[in-house]
Amino acid sequence: MNILYIMFDQLRHDYLSCAGHPTLRTPNIDRIAREGVRFSNTYTQSPVCGAARMSCYTGRYVSSHGAQWNGYPLRVGELTLGDHLRDAGMDCWLIGKTHMKADVKGMERLGLSPDSIIGARQVECGFDTWCRDDGLWAEGPDGPYDTKESPYNTYLKSKGYGGSNPRADFANAGAEGEEMATGWFMHNADRPANIREEDSETPWLTSEAIRFIDQAEGPWCAHVSYIKPHWPYIVPAPYHDMYGPEDVVAAVRDPRELEDPNPVFAAFTGGRIGRSFSRDEVRSKVIPAYMGLIAQCDDQMGRLFGHLEKTGQMDNTMIILTSDHGDYLGDHWMGEKDLFHAPSVRVPLIIRDPRPQADATRGTVSETLTEAIDVTATIIDAAGAEVPENIVEGRSLIPHLHDNKDRKERAFAISEYDYSTHPAGAVLGLEPKDARLFMVATQDWKLVHCEGGIAPMLFDLANDPDELCDLGRDPAYADVRARMYGHLHSWTLRMSQRVTVTDGEIKRRASSPPTTGILLGLWDGSETEPAYSERYRGKAPARPEGD
Amino acid sequence: MNILYIMFDQLRHDYLSCAGHPTLRTPNIDRIAREGVRFSNTYTQSPVCGAARMSCYTGRYVSSHGAQWNGYPLRVGELTLGDHLRDAGMDCWLIGKTHMKADVKGMERLGLSPDSIIGARQVECGFDTWCRDDGLWAEGPDGPYDTKESPYNTYLKSKGYGGSNPRADFANAGAEGEEMATGWFMHNADRPANIREEDSETPWLTSEAIRFIDQAEGPWCAHVSYIKPHWPYIVPAPYHDMYGPEDVVAAVRDPRELEDPNPVFAAFTGGRIGRSFSRDEVRSKVIPAYMGLIAQCDDQMGRLFGHLEKTGQMDNTMIILTSDHGDYLGDHWMGEKDLFHAPSVRVPLIIRDPRPQADATRGTVSETLTEAIDVTATIIDAAGAEVPENIVEGRSLIPHLHDNKDRKERAFAISEYDYSTHPAGAVLGLEPKDARLFMVATQDWKLVHCEGGIAPMLFDLANDPDELCDLGRDPAYADVRARMYGHLHSWTLRMSQRVTVTDGEIKRRASSPPTTGILLGLWDGSETEPAYSERYRGKAPARPEGD
Repeated sequence: MNILYIMFDQLRHDYLSCAGHPTLRTPNIDRIAREGVRFSNTYTQSPVCGAARMSCYTGRYVSSHGAQWNGYPLRVGELTLGDHLRDAGMDCWLIGKTHMKADVKGMERLGLSPDSIIGARQVECGFDTWCRDDGLWAEGPDGPYDTKESPYNTYLKSKGYGGSNPRADFANAGAEGEEMATGWFMHNADRPANIREEDSETPWLTSEAIRFIDQAEGPWCAHVSYIKPHWPYIVPAPYHDMYGPEDVVAAVRDPRELEDPNPVFAAFTGGRIGRSFSRDEVRSKVIPAYMGLIAQCDDQMGRLFGHLEKTGQMDNTMIILTSDHGDYLGDHWMGEKDLFHAPSVRVPLIIRDPRPQADATRGTVSETLTEAIDVTATIIDAAGAEVPENIVEGRSLIPHLHDNKDRKERAFAISEYDYSTHPAGAVLGLEPKDARLFMVATQDWKLVHCEGGIAPMLFDLANDPDELCDLGRDPAYADVRARMYGHLHSWTLRMSQRVTVTDGEIKRRASSPPTTGILLGLWDGSETEPAYSERYRGKAPARPEGD
Repeated sequence: MNILYIMFDQLRHDYLSCAGHPTLRTPNIDRIAREGVRFSNTYTQSPVCGAARMSCYTGRYVSSHGAQWNGYPLRVGELTLGDHLRDAGMDCWLIGKTHMKADVKGMERLGLSPDSIIGARQVECGFDTWCRDDGLWAEGPDGPYDTKESPYNTYLKSKGYGGSNPRADFANAGAEGEEMATGWFMHNADRPANIREEDSETPWLTSEAIRFIDQAEGPWCAHVSYIKPHWPYIVPAPYHDMYGPEDVVAAVRDPRELEDPNPVFAAFTGGRIGRSFSRDEVRSKVIPAYMGLIAQCDDQMGRLFGHLEKTGQMDNTMIILTSDHGDYLGDHWMGEKDLFHAPSVRVPLIIRDPRPQADATRGTVSETLTEAIDVTATIIDAAGAEVPENIVEGRSLIPHLHDNKDRKERAFAISEYDYSTHPAGAVLGLEPKDARLFMVATQDWKLVHCEGGIAPMLFDLANDPDELCDLGRDPAYADVRARMYGHLHSWTLRMSQRVTVTDGEIKRRASSPPTTGILLGLWDGSETEPAYSERYRGKAPARPEGD
């Protein structure tokens, strides 16, 4: 069995027709949900690309792998999906985005050259690279992304698109008369991108995935990782006007959220992005473009799945569809992601397991609590390997897919956010170690612990599913907070760094301690088996002469 | 300034005359205390050799570095004292014991050969090796230690001591008539070891340290790391009868400790070692030998410090004297270490800073809470480097040595113990993840949290300094336990794995965000400085022909 691990970027959990969006149509993704299981209660490990993805690729919580924000290098030697899969005899390929930043200092210290196979895998987060494209590319030393030209820009240039950065000038900009109308300015979001649809980012990456599949010899895992529907919010025709302001659902927000808010919530909603997405004109322009981007993604899924079918690979390929985090889109007076309301922290997750054991669950929706790192464990399990529980902190979902009776349910889900480089951290005047948030969610409650001596947030998911009322400082809910803190504390005491010794090795050691060499607590030889101490008995040897 | 980082193994904090032992004489160690500061409230990070030492060499808590017990490999790439010191232009040499187990699998995965300089440092816990000797060597595949012959055995053979393992047969065994009387059997502890005193382990390692010093070109840090006074409890003449049963202080224990004990305490005291050290005949034999071993260590300190003086290096060498953990010696019905009563978890720590800034504190005793990892930070600080607070979790003690007014006091100290391979774990039927203990101690209280759903232990250090009464299940102390759990939980939320990004880098990033490339939350160009969005404005470029 091969594994197609498809990730979108910034795709909200509820912007799919199978997840209940009233007007958006995603028939190809819906089909996978119909033929697989949709996990409707899935949390990203961090509502920001880089940290979330490092969790997906390591199977570990953010504070376990330490790459807590965009561009924080993943420490050299941290084990990845690629390491686990290759050990199981499966290749692990990258087609698209990872947001990986190499630990250059660590590699230098260990003498690893990025030109070697081992070094290249360290640079690429454990993947073998079919094509790496992080979906943004800014020229010059100020650019936040790798200054090496992206393969997508190379492609555009080969197609005759001019300039140094055609991604910016064509794929992510429209035109207003003779002037460029960049997608970075949201009032341009209803314009068509100035590019042939088939040359835009999502079809290009799909073509790369198809090219990969056509030459691959199994078993393989391919991480097909799209930048879209991530901003800039602009999409080529015909997707740019497929949806309009009438398709924009009402924002989930309440003016009371801004009365006496938690200081962290205030710092985020008070920033430029929050204020901007609170404007109706922004939502009316941006959300139809966002929906168009998703519709284009869905069409490309149709193309990709059609190719699998045509080449007879639908029955030997596990398909996983997910995202790294969501997008507030003006809900809760927020834009982007960063905090832990459902639009930001929950992600879509659909898994189609082609094997007959999964027939019983096809088309079902599972509300079990799920974390993004569970996908990592699922992939390792699907590759036929044992999930190393001393390293990978996620849990395989295959027992859920196969409806096993002994499957385990999570009692709570965890997500984390380090905002020490975000302007909100500066607004609150926090030291880096204090600008950190920890979410713990059960089926019924969600607590957000804030470091730095700031009060927590608390939401009653059963009675306030829209999370409009923060009970974090309400004395009536002290017992609920204590219970949720109990979950958080049990999690913080987990064993996350004993990566060199498996539980199995410990059990083997404990059940067969060494019988020779070290003999502790013995008064004399009568207290142990003669064989154990034989080495230390017999004639006293003679000291060297001259003594 | 050079740094002499001297570590003994299993030396109790209170078995020095400067620490108040009634009859044991340690004039040479006392001299360093007189010329430096003795930290009388120092906790090891784990009461077991391997885990404690990996903390000393990384400056990190046990659950941060993950090498939680003896023989658990330290993950490849984990930063060590050697890495930090070499970055600061100081060599870092090993003379003696580390208990390091190389992460062979991790090294193979990264293509690191143990024969390369980089690989050898990974194998040796970041040190350059003058001589590595872990103080135990057992032949054959069952041996718990490296089967490569130890340099001490090579030395003994060169001196004419016969057999394959003269360390076992001479240095750690006496004779009873014609029969070998091994030190592994404690009834032999009052016999002299069958070896010339100058050939025994402590003088041999001191000679190696002197040889190192005589050829070293500064600046250097030398970790001179003795196996003694660690078991086997046997010492050559004249030390074997320097102390006798009349020097054995009364055991700190109370029969009530064994009434309704905490299950973890019961599992340890009920084991062979606990039962053995609870016998008076064991204490009467073992403790005088232990004291003799310490007296020999002290004499060798006199030799070492005399050499520094003779060669004019006393004034440019910082001297640190400590141990990896203590030894119960029958206190609390325990032998060995493993748990968190003072005889086990506290360690001696004396630092002599030769610089004039330290003159004000010479001969003082500091009761400030101190952890073993603070020594790591102190060494890095003394080498002139900034302590990387995102990696090294200890705090430099130099502000204490220099009596700085802005020095910070620890609110609590932490120690941990993983007993998943210890027989006590099996007695309690625990899974590996549950056989873990966490101690948090303030000046007045000590709480031991037990994973696996087991009740905690609690001691009132102010009113019960001998820790004879466990208040862990006493309802009257629920508030104290809650307060101590508060300390523990704040510690578990610490940021321990963001090792690739310093706080300084984060502050630089936060104060100067990139101004080009990514423009979030903008409605149009009027909302930003023109220069920031210049790249995205101007004429719309022409699409390629044929469109």
